[in-house]
Amino acid sequence: MFFASDNSGPAHPLVMAALVHANEGYAMPYGADALMDEVRVRIREIFEAPEAAVYLVATGTAANSISLATLSQPWDTIFCATEAHIQEDECNAPEFYTGGAKLTLVPSEHAKMTPPALHRAIEAEEGRGVHGPQRGPVSITNVTERGTIYSVAELTELCKVAKSFNLPTHLDGARFANALVALGCTPAEMTWKAGIDAVSFGGTKNGCMGVEAVIFFDPKHAWEFELRRKRGAHLFSKHRYLSAQMLAYLTDDLWLDLARRANAANARLVRGLKQIEGVTFLHEPDANMSFAGWSRAGHQRLHDSGATYYIWEGVLDGTDPDKVLTARMVADWSTRDDNIDRFLELVRG
Amino acid sequence: MFFASDNSGPAHPLVMAALVHANEGYAMPYGADALMDEVRVRIREIFEAPEAAVYLVATGTAANSISLATLSQPWDTIFCATEAHIQEDECNAPEFYTGGAKLTLVPSEHAKMTPPALHRAIEAEEGRGVHGPQRGPVSITNVTERGTIYSVAELTELCKVAKSFNLPTHLDGARFANALVALGCTPAEMTWKAGIDAVSFGGTKNGCMGVEAVIFFDPKHAWEFELRRKRGAHLFSKHRYLSAQMLAYLTDDLWLDLARRANAANARLVRGLKQIEGVTFLHEPDANMSFAGWSRAGHQRLHDSGATYYIWEGVLDGTDPDKVLTARMVADWSTRDDNIDRFLELVRG
Amino acid sequence: MFFASDNSGPAHPLVMAALVHANEGYAMPYGADALMDEVRVRIREIFEAPEAAVYLVATGTAANSISLATLSQPWDTIFCATEAHIQEDECNAPEFYTGGAKLTLVPSEHAKMTPPALHRAIEAEEGRGVHGPQRGPVSITNVTERGTIYSVAELTELCKVAKSFNLPTHLDGARFANALVALGCTPAEMTWKAGIDAVSFGGTKNGCMGVEAVIFFDPKHAWEFELRRKRGAHLFSKHRYLSAQMLAYLTDDLWLDLARRANAANARLVRGLKQIEGVTFLHEPDANMSFAGWSRAGHQRLHDSGATYYIWEGVLDGTDPDKVLTARMVADWSTRDDNIDRFLELVRG
Amino acid sequence: MFFASDNSGPAHPLVMAALVHANEGYAMPYGADALMDEVRVRIREIFEAPEAAVYLVATGTAANSISLATLSQPWDTIFCATEAHIQEDECNAPEFYTGGAKLTLVPSEHAKMTPPALHRAIEAEEGRGVHGPQRGPVSITNVTERGTIYSVAELTELCKVAKSFNLPTHLDGARFANALVALGCTPAEMTWKAGIDAVSFGGTKNGCMGVEAVIFFDPKHAWEFELRRKRGAHLFSKHRYLSAQMLAYLTDDLWLDLARRANAANARLVRGLKQIEGVTFLHEPDANMSFAGWSRAGHQRLHDSGATYYIWEGVLDGTDPDKVLTARMVADWSTRDDNIDRFLELVRG
Repeated sequence: MFFASDNSGPAHPLVMAALVHANEGYAMPYGADALMDEVRVRIREIFEAPEAAVYLVATGTAANSISLATLSQPWDTIFCATEAHIQEDECNAPEFYTGGAKLTLVPSEHAKMTPPALHRAIEAEEGRGVHGPQRGPVSITNVTERGTIYSVAELTELCKVAKSFNLPTHLDGARFANALVALGCTPAEMTWKAGIDAVSFGGTKNGCMGVEAVIFFDPKHAWEFELRRKRGAHLFSKHRYLSAQMLAYLTDDLWLDLARRANAANARLVRGLKQIEGVTFLHEPDANMSFAGWSRAGHQRLHDSGATYYIWEGVLDGTDPDKVLTARMVADWSTRDDNIDRFLELVRG
Repeated sequence: MFFASDNSGPAHPLVMAALVHANEGYAMPYGADALMDEVRVRIREIFEAPEAAVYLVATGTAANSISLATLSQPWDTIFCATEAHIQEDECNAPEFYTGGAKLTLVPSEHAKMTPPALHRAIEAEEGRGVHGPQRGPVSITNVTERGTIYSVAELTELCKVAKSFNLPTHLDGARFANALVALGCTPAEMTWKAGIDAVSFGGTKNGCMGVEAVIFFDPKHAWEFELRRKRGAHLFSKHRYLSAQMLAYLTDDLWLDLARRANAANARLVRGLKQIEGVTFLHEPDANMSFAGWSRAGHQRLHDSGATYYIWEGVLDGTDPDKVLTARMVADWSTRDDNIDRFLELVRG
Repeated sequence: MFFASDNSGPAHPLVMAALVHANEGYAMPYGADALMDEVRVRIREIFEAPEAAVYLVATGTAANSISLATLSQPWDTIFCATEAHIQEDECNAPEFYTGGAKLTLVPSEHAKMTPPALHRAIEAEEGRGVHGPQRGPVSITNVTERGTIYSVAELTELCKVAKSFNLPTHLDGARFANALVALGCTPAEMTWKAGIDAVSFGGTKNGCMGVEAVIFFDPKHAWEFELRRKRGAHLFSKHRYLSAQMLAYLTDDLWLDLARRANAANARLVRGLKQIEGVTFLHEPDANMSFAGWSRAGHQRLHDSGATYYIWEGVLDGTDPDKVLTARMVADWSTRDDNIDRFLELVRG
Repeated sequence: MFFASDNSGPAHPLVMAALVHANEGYAMPYGADALMDEVRVRIREIFEAPEAAVYLVATGTAANSISLATLSQPWDTIFCATEAHIQEDECNAPEFYTGGAKLTLVPSEHAKMTPPALHRAIEAEEGRGVHGPQRGPVSITNVTERGTIYSVAELTELCKVAKSFNLPTHLDGARFANALVALGCTPAEMTWKAGIDAVSFGGTKNGCMGVEAVIFFDPKHAWEFELRRKRGAHLFSKHRYLSAQMLAYLTDDLWLDLARRANAANARLVRGLKQIEGVTFLHEPDANMSFAGWSRAGHQRLHDSGATYYIWEGVLDGTDPDKVLTARMVADWSTRDDNIDRFLELVRG
């Protein structure tokens, strides 16, 4: 009963098989491997973006930080939601990679920036000439850090706001596939057709071992990204093992299949929780993550049975068994129905 | 006939098997996996260093840059050989991670700093108070970038010089195992007993897929390194796959076995080349890398037969078939005797 | 009728005279001038801090950024009010000097952080181990950017909160003297007795040409600050001209006298404005800065008569003469009563 | 008898008078003062560069670091002489401001790079794609740190080398005027006509209190420089005092006059020293700085009589009175003939 994160499950067997398969003889290092050529072709196809610059790195923080650094200047401020991973969970990596850019936190609802709030935030960064930070990229996370999803229309509106100020846009897609299958749109619709310039396209949380693609729809960013990646020590010599993961992930729609499984697991969990009296939700769970509250007694039963998840608000230790504590639960492709059902039983009591 | 680098060969099957084996169920992320506990125990045993802080990253540049940043201040200068990887091949990653420290290039012989040259270089960085860079760590590479090796006595002398100025010492051990088996000493003798404070302990070039350990013999550096690693985006969520590689690498002396194979392959190559008239060596090849020169005609034959290696000095295209060009050849654990012999034949003509 | 800022008035004649006086013969460079010895002695006396490390720089942004960098690590977040100069008006200089630290904006009332809001903000930065930014220094501005003042009791409370988390504290005292004379306390009471660790002690806005002192009550920060100052290119060779300004400023209580003049000028302005019907104040003006609103027609009259000040909210051009626009007005030591009175007349209409 | 540096003498009375004169009423801050308009016009005239972007900062290190940062990327390496001030005496400020660029030290003769050496150094930084540092600006110092001077022809040759690799060029002119009057050429000939893109134009060492201009002949760099200057905390609010110094300096050829005086003082010293038996010169002194050696006994006599200068090589304390120690002597505009003559007498013994 592991619901702590989708960063802790196994890689899919097809990904592992691809790694073993790739492990034959010599391969040119540093991204010059033949598999990377296939990855590039495949991603361009999937995104309907024949000119896109495509790169691989091993962590989501690297994908975000290096792409944002490529889109900004050290004197800029990056606009993002208050809950953004780049703000909350990257130990100042964006500030490090950008050389000291600032992050402007845009007020959000359920971790989603609204276009008017973004507009106000950007507008507020003006009129001070050289004194204030300059306006930099807008970074949007889909699936958000609270499990909610921006619709294509919402993404489009946010990008319109950014573009009205001539600012570049970045999509943190650590859970890109989960958002995509929930929205039922195409990768192009969720990105460049909506106005996105650069994407962190996650693989790690959805069945890979550790690989994320970075996609720039305008290839003019390519060489700068390559230099920044190397300078950040994120260029792998034995790059074929990144390529092999990503290629397996993109083959025969494995990535979509795995995301559907994760989303379905979460839906089963949510359905079950909604039927339990007294369970309340912080946000409407659209993808593979949910935040719901129930009694401390319920949490204690789960804890005693070895269930693993984060208590988001509140502390398990305490005297009032009726006190409501909120859980953060994340499903991945490997989450099993029997574990979900047992989890629900324990909540139920 | 691939001799371009030891960063291009396959991972050893036992490493791949360990990855597949590790790919079961959930594992706590970010270095809290159970395999990492075993890695830590094992490295402390191997290095006879029960207090050492041990971490894993995926690239050698990350291991070097983050450990040097941990040992230095932005206003320091790091002392290293003119040929050091941190100077030549990391796209300013050390400058990036240290926040702008300088590198002082110490004149070297066959890519080895001599103690007097190091002493002079350190001594020269003084007397200017706040104006000049401050003296920072000494970084030593073993095996060097030219395939030569520092003896334990030489390492000890260099560290003595550093310590006489109260400076910390770093060992770039991207080819640690190759040096160790060539020297026939213990890991402790090659490191802390000689005066080394921090080690980049390479796995990638010697049969792993992509993993390097960083070892601080004084655990006071631990927390700072952890923060720097995360801020650099080098903390893996699915960390177990780094652990699994490293554990397999260290099990049953696989690491030593693979290094012996690579060194033996290079020795066979060198032996063969030395028997060919007109072949000259730039440096005495001590480990798994050699630099030797022969006629352009010989290189052309190799090239036409698909041999892959770097021409270090000179250009293949040209008119004089007798012109000597120098090759850089690197063997890894998977280099096969038949390929070496065929290579030699083609040099011979 | 110049009320745009206290950074635009003349230096006091005694400061200029001191400069001319200092301009004799040779003086040791880089802070080793004899005048600096006197400055150090004088500041230690004034602050009752015989151990304090004392330095001079030429700009307030340098004083803030370099002292905050000395108190923090690149992976920290600095706590400050939403309106703080370090956030709003320094073009990411704090991020630059700290090597990429973050600023956490603490909700404020009239540009003053409240202790509970500070406590909540610090508390919120926890529980994510290596993932989130680490807690760094608390920076407090007195006089605030909105002309309000923290009492000694309020400063003490804020510092208590910081100390309860073991965090260092910084006072941005660009208008230190204006706050001090308004509070009627001693420099020690407004700083280290309240729990402040480092002070940017402004001279520029209060009658100097361009000089700010940085004071660390714990001298352990001294050497690091010196290196950071030099690395930031803020160590003056002809340092005597910084010393001379500061010494004149501190002699015979000139600094207090000038601050009293500026505060009195502002008080006269405020008194006059309060007597005019329809004038409203954004904040209670405690020192030498005020924010008040009146009709567009009034602003137009001022503008036509050559009055210089910032329209803080609203735009002068427009059709409705009754529309209220807010002005930001700052007085300095040289503000003349006749200009204030004429300004008031023009508001009155 | 002060010969330690030209950074320790007084400002010229006309510069002080200009400061006092400028100290009237209010002046727009941050470079918008009317005096700065005059400075801009004057510098464009002097340099015959009507489009040039012109800025003022207070220290030479700021002028060098910020202009080099504007011309380079963090992954670049800057080419300069081994003795360059940016390498030796700026505590890693160039690395700080550039965000971690490297400096490649070009072997020099008497602190002057030769065109072939520069060519070799630039050429050597290639062929490693993303791995090595990228080629960045060439920085040339005139007067050099050893008191020698590049001729216009030599500057032109160096710039030709840089341009053949498409690299921008920077002139560190901390002693610009001293070089100019020694060469007898025009400012344009010593800069853009020779191929220089950006100049640090020193005032501090030649009769100012603390001011340096930065000149970009191509104004496309203007806005980036302004942001970098502010972010570096080098934008003065009371900027008129920088402008006033520079304007006085450039009025009625004061700057040339002062440089001629300093050079003449040095010439008198050199003439005298050359007539003393046993005095040897390290370099041919072309401007206002010389390096010459004589007996320890001579140095002792000078020391006992209160002469101030640096002993460049050797240590005064010692037993052998005949041992030769080298002195570094610098004259400025205020160096008096009687002090020179007394100095010479004491060397003579």
